Amino acid sequence: MSFKLRIAPVKPAETGEVYDVVIVGGGPAGLTAALYSARYELKPIVITKLVGGYMTEAPLVDDYPGLPDTPGEELVNRFVSHVRKYNVPIIQDEVVDVKRSDKLWCVQTASEKTYCGYAVIIAVGSEKRKLGVKGEDEFVGRGVSYCATCDGPLFKGKVVAVVGGGNSALTSALYLANLASKVYLIHRRSEFKAFKIYVERAEKNPKIEILRNSIVKEIIGDTHVRAIVVYNNTTNEEKTLNVDGVFIEIGLKPPREFFEKIGVKVDESGHAVVNVDRSTNLEGVFVAGDAAGGPYKYRFEQIITAAAEGAIAADAAFKYILSVKK
Amino acid sequence: MSFKLRIAPVKPAETGEVYDVVIVGGGPAGLTAALYSARYELKPIVITKLVGGYMTEAPLVDDYPGLPDTPGEELVNRFVSHVRKYNVPIIQDEVVDVKRSDKLWCVQTASEKTYCGYAVIIAVGSEKRKLGVKGEDEFVGRGVSYCATCDGPLFKGKVVAVVGGGNSALTSALYLANLASKVYLIHRRSEFKAFKIYVERAEKNPKIEILRNSIVKEIIGDTHVRAIVVYNNTTNEEKTLNVDGVFIEIGLKPPREFFEKIGVKVDESGHAVVNVDRSTNLEGVFVAGDAAGGPYKYRFEQIITAAAEGAIAADAAFKYILSVKK
Repeated sequence: MSFKLRIAPVKPAETGEVYDVVIVGGGPAGLTAALYSARYELKPIVITKLVGGYMTEAPLVDDYPGLPDTPGEELVNRFVSHVRKYNVPIIQDEVVDVKRSDKLWCVQTASEKTYCGYAVIIAVGSEKRKLGVKGEDEFVGRGVSYCATCDGPLFKGKVVAVVGGGNSALTSALYLANLASKVYLIHRRSEFKAFKIYVERAEKNPKIEILRNSIVKEIIGDTHVRAIVVYNNTTNEEKTLNVDGVFIEIGLKPPREFFEKIGVKVDESGHAVVNVDRSTNLEGVFVAGDAAGGPYKYRFEQIITAAAEGAIAADAAFKYILSVKK
Repeated sequence: MSFKLRIAPVKPAETGEVYDVVIVGGGPAGLTAALYSARYELKPIVITKLVGGYMTEAPLVDDYPGLPDTPGEELVNRFVSHVRKYNVPIIQDEVVDVKRSDKLWCVQTASEKTYCGYAVIIAVGSEKRKLGVKGEDEFVGRGVSYCATCDGPLFKGKVVAVVGGGNSALTSALYLANLASKVYLIHRRSEFKAFKIYVERAEKNPKIEILRNSIVKEIIGDTHVRAIVVYNNTTNEEKTLNVDGVFIEIGLKPPREFFEKIGVKVDESGHAVVNVDRSTNLEGVFVAGDAAGGPYKYRFEQIITAAAEGAIAADAAFKYILSVKK
């Protein structure tokens, strides 16, 4: 998600309406926060750039318990209709700022609307870092994946490449080696940032071939990914490897600038530092899902974990509102 | 859940099989841990006294996002069939002990079976404390509830009683006052343990009537709860109040003795002290769901939160096993 810096003056409750909870983001965390807030008889509103968030991109989700083999779009529809059952408005707009206005928090959007409430739950997710190479966007969901945990089982017996050098890349390669016929692990440097034990395991694994000092220059395919072009930056050699899948595990890009603008404390990686109840350093501002970080957050970007954090943030917001709303 | 103290000698891998993860408990946390472990190509097994855990008791679940208005039994079936799709064995048995045996953890059951694995995920839940009065068990799911968050919306416009004096009881009463026509808050003492702000809000709320020094002696009904008998232990008066629902919010009874027997560190309340990844003080032993506690746990006993912790524990167990399994 990118945040435009268009700034409109704060006009609290310009529509005359004051909400209890303004939820920024409509992925699994935001929608679950809406569901729980509404069930608590609070008055929530959801403002989101993309209804469903990353779920919309998943061809088939099989890791949301109780709903096996569900297309991402269907899962989005299921979440949305569950929320709509409670008459929660879902507004498609981009939030550009969140400001304190007297006892309320006011959210400003790209279309210059302002929505105010006693609490704000920010659930805008975290962008996956992209390689930025030809074929990458084209083949998302058709061989290109940013989540081995989510999409790995689709590649049983196939040849895959994992790109990256950190713990995510290494654990993804080791996991995929349990089911794929071959795993190329491609890293642009000679040394890995990952834990030594993972690197040793990968080096010993007969199914894993490590290509160091190497970058992926292009992803090639037809209906699906068929090959990648790999360039070795020490030998200057270029080769084409036949693969069925490419797992890009080069990290996340949380909305650091957005949090810094609002004044939400961020950790080293740019994720919001949350307490155990998903509250932040700003009273009344909660962060749930992939945008949350800090010592109380186990970073595991799944639908089920994001949804749970939305529920927790709503429960904490309910208790917060109990104590501040007259 | 009660844990019998029958002790059989440890016979590691008596069936010859060694699992990667032995999962103790088959509620939402245990079943999701099984789903994620299997998706990681680990070899998990689930051993549980009650398949589905507390979900089995819920007449209608409307707070699991994406599956509105789902009978508890149906939700259990959905979770179980999702897990069975990955061929994970689910054994109905009671676990009485967990012991270290060389590099494995071995789980012993009441029927004197032993199951060993590299990691154990304990997801046995936490018993809700009961009043222990006539009518309580009889009307569970028919007016008697231990979770206002879960069942509150079923009591719109009705008269309910909340029993208890802590934060759960107070926040439940305040929440229910938003939808019920009247809420009796019944507490056996004169002083509340809850935060002062909640007590003040309850005192000021015109829909809430607080009965101090009072205990519920009996729950009366036909197909559903119709009334409660309340006894005031200072005036010795007894009266019958017509109510449609009774919310019993007098705390939880986590499996403290079970954890102490195994050697898992517990917090003041008897919940297992977990790290952010749901690991414990014992290497290879993880605790997920309602039985978990400590500073990294936001206690909020919901299906969605328990399931998320099962996923986190499985991810952490996968990484642990990567580093210990030869």
